[in-house]
Amino acid sequence: MKAFNLLKMIEDVVAPGGILLGEDVTGRSDDWPPRGGCQAMAIIRPVSTGEVSAVLKLCHAAGQSVVTHGGLTGLVGGARAAKEDIVLSLERMNRIEAVDIANRTLTVEAGVPLQRVQEAAEQADLLFPLDLGARGSCTIGGNISTNAGGNSVIRYGMMREQLLGVEAVLADGTIISSLNGVIKNNTGYDLKQLFVGSEGTLGVVTRAVLRLRPLPRSSSTALVAIDHFEQVAAFLRDMDSALGGTLSAFEVLWNDFYRTIVGDGSKHKPPLNPSHPYYVLLESTGGHQESDRVRFEAALEEAFESGLIVDAVIAQSKQQREDLWAIRDDIEGLSRKLFPPIVFDVSLDIPKMESYVAAVRRQIHERWPDAQMVAFGHLGDGNIHLVVTVGSLEPAEVHAVESIIYKELGRCQGIISAEHGIGLDKREYLKHSRSEIEISLMKTLKQALDPKGILNPGKIFAESAT
Amino acid sequence: MKAFNLLKMIEDVVAPGGILLGEDVTGRSDDWPPRGGCQAMAIIRPVSTGEVSAVLKLCHAAGQSVVTHGGLTGLVGGARAAKEDIVLSLERMNRIEAVDIANRTLTVEAGVPLQRVQEAAEQADLLFPLDLGARGSCTIGGNISTNAGGNSVIRYGMMREQLLGVEAVLADGTIISSLNGVIKNNTGYDLKQLFVGSEGTLGVVTRAVLRLRPLPRSSSTALVAIDHFEQVAAFLRDMDSALGGTLSAFEVLWNDFYRTIVGDGSKHKPPLNPSHPYYVLLESTGGHQESDRVRFEAALEEAFESGLIVDAVIAQSKQQREDLWAIRDDIEGLSRKLFPPIVFDVSLDIPKMESYVAAVRRQIHERWPDAQMVAFGHLGDGNIHLVVTVGSLEPAEVHAVESIIYKELGRCQGIISAEHGIGLDKREYLKHSRSEIEISLMKTLKQALDPKGILNPGKIFAESAT
Repeated sequence: MKAFNLLKMIEDVVAPGGILLGEDVTGRSDDWPPRGGCQAMAIIRPVSTGEVSAVLKLCHAAGQSVVTHGGLTGLVGGARAAKEDIVLSLERMNRIEAVDIANRTLTVEAGVPLQRVQEAAEQADLLFPLDLGARGSCTIGGNISTNAGGNSVIRYGMMREQLLGVEAVLADGTIISSLNGVIKNNTGYDLKQLFVGSEGTLGVVTRAVLRLRPLPRSSSTALVAIDHFEQVAAFLRDMDSALGGTLSAFEVLWNDFYRTIVGDGSKHKPPLNPSHPYYVLLESTGGHQESDRVRFEAALEEAFESGLIVDAVIAQSKQQREDLWAIRDDIEGLSRKLFPPIVFDVSLDIPKMESYVAAVRRQIHERWPDAQMVAFGHLGDGNIHLVVTVGSLEPAEVHAVESIIYKELGRCQGIISAEHGIGLDKREYLKHSRSEIEISLMKTLKQALDPKGILNPGKIFAESAT
Repeated sequence: MKAFNLLKMIEDVVAPGGILLGEDVTGRSDDWPPRGGCQAMAIIRPVSTGEVSAVLKLCHAAGQSVVTHGGLTGLVGGARAAKEDIVLSLERMNRIEAVDIANRTLTVEAGVPLQRVQEAAEQADLLFPLDLGARGSCTIGGNISTNAGGNSVIRYGMMREQLLGVEAVLADGTIISSLNGVIKNNTGYDLKQLFVGSEGTLGVVTRAVLRLRPLPRSSSTALVAIDHFEQVAAFLRDMDSALGGTLSAFEVLWNDFYRTIVGDGSKHKPPLNPSHPYYVLLESTGGHQESDRVRFEAALEEAFESGLIVDAVIAQSKQQREDLWAIRDDIEGLSRKLFPPIVFDVSLDIPKMESYVAAVRRQIHERWPDAQMVAFGHLGDGNIHLVVTVGSLEPAEVHAVESIIYKELGRCQGIISAEHGIGLDKREYLKHSRSEIEISLMKTLKQALDPKGILNPGKIFAESAT
């Protein structure tokens, strides 16, 4: 009855079509990969920041929990809603409000998909550099709330570095408008940082001012083969230096990954012999195609002569570039071969990576002789992904795999989530990467900004007393 | 007596030589430019994080206010101490603890001067890109607390972007150790952001993990002359694009600045005729001297042919490069000619800059016909500095100048402090750049982290009830 009254009041403050109930709710997912319909009591779809504020004010007064939804492509259960939750979806706030070419900024509503932002920037002959596989579905609001990473972090940084200003609504409905549009602003605390990577627990991001970059006029792409891991690390340093900071991707594929993707029955033609321990897909983008290509080839030549790399193929056309990236990006093909997949996203010191991956692999195979595991990722950022299958997603089995991965990671002082965040799924393991004192300070912030704990409750950490 | 007891207790928790009193205090400044000795009751000089924690625990229990000191090169009175304050100086915590070449990080104590960090990076064939005139005195802790900017922000970002991990001590002595060393870490709230740019009001930074970059192998430097402001903005866009993201400085000098520095009696030989409205000092750094030079010259050639620039001199030697930078960096010569100087540091939309500078100049000259004013700065970041002299630093006169500068800035929705921060001197004007709601949220954070208000009290905003 109480919930019914609240929904009646919400109906009065949102534009028509603003409330979804029943099958309109359960017919949607709130997770990826989807595991059944959304359980929330209702989905609210405001069309403006004012409406978001009005809805939150009502929820705050009622002590009603609110889970904010963006594009629902997160991988850690950060958007999962329980049946007592209300979902706030920003899908009707999806306008690109302003393109400012002189200052190189875009002002957008939080519900706009990443790909539309990329396209709007490109139409203005500029680049919005954040890029990830989910670009067609994920939203800028979600990118901010999860501090998204992706393929070009090595060159341009994470979402945090692409954000100049933000507008957000606090738990009690207060609108914080910090829509700064300049790169340098040291006027008191940088409040936007509160909303980046906090997974919707400190406020609801409604609008953002994004920083754009010059659109590259050239790209050079190669896949190389390397025999020893320490050469991978040395090759990274050499390329980053020789290419003068224009290195925009340095993706390492362990042999298992490469063989799984290009092996028997694959749609990919192997560009290099699949017998090497490591492959690196690297790319450099710059301002001048011809001189950049010469420099790129000279740098690879030097690496070849010094014995760092043993084989290489350089893309000679747009198609060849796309074919090389298709190998790295074929997560769908990977998931089919390693089914059902358990996905990890860890950061650790580059020199520790080889022994870490080997140790984890050994322990997995000891326990599940038929298990499969591949490693790949953004090595230039110290970040690798592991995909493991043990033939089941039985919670006890998943837990056993996680324990191996994270226990070993703890030994290497690694980070349990480089990009994906904590959400619900990694909450239990947060203590492997953050101290009790750090978590306690996080709770202090949560308490200060959302004392009733209505925003995405239970995500990141359990909401016990601090 | 209470203070005496507190100092006795502090004496017990710090290493010998840890407390300065009397003339050892008043003989020091706490401001720049210096305006008389430090007024604090004592200067405490801990040698470890544990000592900082112990001192703060005692101060917290006693409700004792604490002003943290780094290199004392701030420009806004952020380190100024009153006679009831205790100063905490990190000057004895100045070790470089670790250089990690593989992960490209440096771990340092907060009291280490910036220049020593730069040198340690260079010895490892790496670059710590933050650079500013005060490099020999300013400390990393101060750089973090003020989110320092400087000359290479256009390429590498502000201090915030150079910081991977931080250790800080909260007001009550709690040590928050977030000494993360990886680029990507999405495990809960990014707590280090709290301590960046908060000017010592939320905690005392004691150690940091800094991100290093490849050391550039080439640099190309030029000074060009431009006739119209909109061409300056177009030239910036063209260069940033043509140089493929390797543009590392784009400093604009208005004609007054240039004439003031290279005019009669100057030690600088004018590299270009002093009759042009605008000069740009630009620099590109990269991986390969020869190919980078060719590209740089070709880009300038193109700008010349399209009429964007009307004259240019390209440095042909290290000496010539240094001579060009000496013009931009001759703030001492500038301060002698514009004495006594009042210094401003504003950000605003690039297209509004020309009319903003003209409007301010007109108003200044209307009121003080003999006033002098020059404009220059990091235009690539949307940031310009103004230096004004009206022949006096009489508070009423300074206030009148500030009112003109900031009132006009408000009309352009500009930012009152791009780099320098707020401290005490700009507190009154914070409202020109931040809303009441934003300032109220800042106070909520302050209240959550420092409920007794002992850390750098009164800086950034007055400590009234929220």
